Amino acid sequence: MSRYTAPLADMRFALYDVLGAEAILTNLNGGEGHTRDLLDAVLDEGARFNEQVLAPLNKSGDQEGCHFEAGTVRTPKGFKEAYKQFVDGGWAGLTAPADMGGQELPESIGAVFKEMIDSANLSWGTYPLLSHGATESLKAIGSDWQKEVFLKAIVDGRWTGTMCLTEPHCGSDLGLLKTRAEPAADGTYKIYGTKIFITAGEHDMTDNIVHLVLARLPDAPAGTRGISLFIVPKFKVNQAGEQGERNAVACGSIEHKMGIKASATCVMNFDGAEGYLIGEPNKGLAGMFIMMNTARLAVGLQGLGLMERAYQNALAYARDRLQMRSLTGAKRPDKPADPLIVHPDIRRMLLTQKAFIEAGRVLTYKAFVLVDVAHRGADETTRKNADDLLGFLTPIVKAMMTELAVENCYHALQIFGGHGYIQEWGMEQLARDARITTIYEGTTQIQALDLLGRKIMQVGRGECCTWRRIPCRKTGHHPLLLRPDPAAPRHPQGGPREWRRQHDGV
Amino acid sequence: MSRYTAPLADMRFALYDVLGAEAILTNLNGGEGHTRDLLDAVLDEGARFNEQVLAPLNKSGDQEGCHFEAGTVRTPKGFKEAYKQFVDGGWAGLTAPADMGGQELPESIGAVFKEMIDSANLSWGTYPLLSHGATESLKAIGSDWQKEVFLKAIVDGRWTGTMCLTEPHCGSDLGLLKTRAEPAADGTYKIYGTKIFITAGEHDMTDNIVHLVLARLPDAPAGTRGISLFIVPKFKVNQAGEQGERNAVACGSIEHKMGIKASATCVMNFDGAEGYLIGEPNKGLAGMFIMMNTARLAVGLQGLGLMERAYQNALAYARDRLQMRSLTGAKRPDKPADPLIVHPDIRRMLLTQKAFIEAGRVLTYKAFVLVDVAHRGADETTRKNADDLLGFLTPIVKAMMTELAVENCYHALQIFGGHGYIQEWGMEQLARDARITTIYEGTTQIQALDLLGRKIMQVGRGECCTWRRIPCRKTGHHPLLLRPDPAAPRHPQGGPREWRRQHDGV
Repeated sequence: MSRYTAPLADMRFALYDVLGAEAILTNLNGGEGHTRDLLDAVLDEGARFNEQVLAPLNKSGDQEGCHFEAGTVRTPKGFKEAYKQFVDGGWAGLTAPADMGGQELPESIGAVFKEMIDSANLSWGTYPLLSHGATESLKAIGSDWQKEVFLKAIVDGRWTGTMCLTEPHCGSDLGLLKTRAEPAADGTYKIYGTKIFITAGEHDMTDNIVHLVLARLPDAPAGTRGISLFIVPKFKVNQAGEQGERNAVACGSIEHKMGIKASATCVMNFDGAEGYLIGEPNKGLAGMFIMMNTARLAVGLQGLGLMERAYQNALAYARDRLQMRSLTGAKRPDKPADPLIVHPDIRRMLLTQKAFIEAGRVLTYKAFVLVDVAHRGADETTRKNADDLLGFLTPIVKAMMTELAVENCYHALQIFGGHGYIQEWGMEQLARDARITTIYEGTTQIQALDLLGRKIMQVGRGECCTWRRIPCRKTGHHPLLLRPDPAAPRHPQGGPREWRRQHDGV
Repeated sequence: MSRYTAPLADMRFALYDVLGAEAILTNLNGGEGHTRDLLDAVLDEGARFNEQVLAPLNKSGDQEGCHFEAGTVRTPKGFKEAYKQFVDGGWAGLTAPADMGGQELPESIGAVFKEMIDSANLSWGTYPLLSHGATESLKAIGSDWQKEVFLKAIVDGRWTGTMCLTEPHCGSDLGLLKTRAEPAADGTYKIYGTKIFITAGEHDMTDNIVHLVLARLPDAPAGTRGISLFIVPKFKVNQAGEQGERNAVACGSIEHKMGIKASATCVMNFDGAEGYLIGEPNKGLAGMFIMMNTARLAVGLQGLGLMERAYQNALAYARDRLQMRSLTGAKRPDKPADPLIVHPDIRRMLLTQKAFIEAGRVLTYKAFVLVDVAHRGADETTRKNADDLLGFLTPIVKAMMTELAVENCYHALQIFGGHGYIQEWGMEQLARDARITTIYEGTTQIQALDLLGRKIMQVGRGECCTWRRIPCRKTGHHPLLLRPDPAAPRHPQGGPREWRRQHDGV
């Protein structure tokens, strides 16, 4: 079985020494208590939980997989109990608002903890994964009742959240969405349609599941401007927040996948299920994107977590396995052969892994520090600048950390040779698990479109030139410096070429 | 399920139009009958066998896997029957010598047929895979009795061959080998030891299995100079070639692997099994390398076969799946969205796949044409030159085609998006199956050592400078031109640096 020890020293180095997070986090609004002592204690405890509770369930979960019987999903042995420990330990609401029952610790600390989960047991981590995104969406645009009933239950871990976007005929292209919502007399909606690839759409860890569902109202415009967002709980909830009868939403089947086999990937059928509109009609995509951006950063962390575990094991194996002599003469003449690590190409692979991880960790944590500053920075300019840079970095973190994870796991498996290809050592599981990360929450190709089309080229829509994310020829502003001139003129309508003509005079 | 149609036009283009194989093959010794009409008919029939018999068993074989019970292996449903059709169709001895019962067709035609097998069903293909290598070894260094009894049975497909090298503590480093052979009074040997990762070490397709086993004689020198090669049949064979009682060799278990799940990867225990020495004592590695080089080229073909199937399916999906509009305006305004293939990054991935396949097919077929010329070229110089270039190309074909296969399957899976990650469409199976190819029969790293250390840098051992495979500074010979000067001086002993000093005067 593959091993995992939380790399606390490396994590602290990235967060504190490279990113200077101590000063940043204590300067957040309400961040006075975020002392290094406190945060370190949290991470120590998190390491214990992940090493001792989640990591031992990684291989068994992969081998057992999820069980689907008559609409219910049973998670692998030990998963439910581990979730209970997660909730009892207060981990579910680690970064959630205090007034919702959370501990309101920085997102960047939550990210370090989540990296450990993703190393210890990626599949298990997908159950609470989307609760975090649901929290963000509900916090931003949920009604008071929705926050009181659904957000609080998610924050304290009693219920989990899902994100129901994909349908059989539409994945990335949400404009094709067909699921429909019919208004009922009591102000609720009846949801009809089929969603696929719904992570943790059904499971046995909690009493209720809160689906966040994209659907169309009867009079909605075509395309993405006619999509609304709804809460559809597995069990209906009354005004007082009491859990009632089963809602008309059911899991039709679970997918048989290459990896993350212990994560239930569900087909969800909505047959007139009772739903509650979140935010405004036809503005659902904006709400979903709050969730989606959170999820994209979370998937970047998954890449990091997988890389760390793959590297730890490859390094240990390369030090232990004796095979052939060093080209520069025996390094262990007392042994029948030298350890693998003496061979140049093995070192190249290990150092590649290490470089990916060290640089990737700083990049990913940087994004989460920006989340903290964007939410709780001292003033509006600071928050806006952090949010701008975060928007730019999100597709980079998502795409880069996952593509590197695929490559990193390739190296780990290669270092193990034939032993990497068999289940016993755990490397092939990491490679299979990693392979989903470049796909879900938007493929690498979708991230590229987001980066180039929305974060760099999207100009001429009244946005300031800082949105172009390339140096402005007129003002010389470089977007990464985040020093836009507040007095800079806003730009006229028109495509990028027209904009460049008017703005830069070229 | 993924589909497969043998790309006969592409195959013929590579073989005939690019490589000019028609003239080469008819000019081989005994090659007068290798007309294009005959060879085309063979390939047409081969395509039918692979499309209709093997391809439909690919997914079911992966899902069912092999069954290990009390020392026996049962292959997945249909595998045994497919093997019978393979033997009945005369495919087992396609390229084997006529005097051994084979059809003595060119190896390059056998390679085209084998590419189809590797596309249709890589796991199934591993059962006859090593029979081919065993044929080559026995043909080269087997005794008359060994040829009569074992080679003929392998050629007609009654028995299959294996290659027993790896032990738990030694993979690439055969010098560490521990399996031992004790001479018996009757001229046979008793073999003791454990071999692992033995492909098709045990199965239910044939009555007998012929293991080619590396082991040490009692007085053998340490390291690779003390290794001998033995035939160890599953059932003993008497002098008349009649199959007798069970030999003391047994399958201890089979591996649970990332892919090629329908291929039995066996732990083989030799408990005083009766064995017959092949060739001279302590010269076993040379015999094994005949087999190994054949197997390395065969694994290169596996990469090609996997790439072809992955590409065919990715292309079909990209044409069929509607998702988003082209950046340059709607290409299918009659449909709700454009097909995936309009998107630049999808095209980039498809074209990358296609480029790998087209160039890779020519390279790989080239190697097999060289095998034909090296075996049956008109004169010794022609044969020697072909063999030289083949030795140089073998690690390149093995490493390149398999590394590209991993990348190619990555692209195919990515083009399918979430649907690539689930078992239904078959892309994830191709990716899992491909992952072994950069490992077995020598990792990419071992190929690199072979290419650089043995094929380029191995000088000063009395070899001519042509072995350096880089232009000789003194004579200007370029090894790829294969025009060595027969009068060139042989080079003195010493390392590469010493050799360069003496030879080039630098």
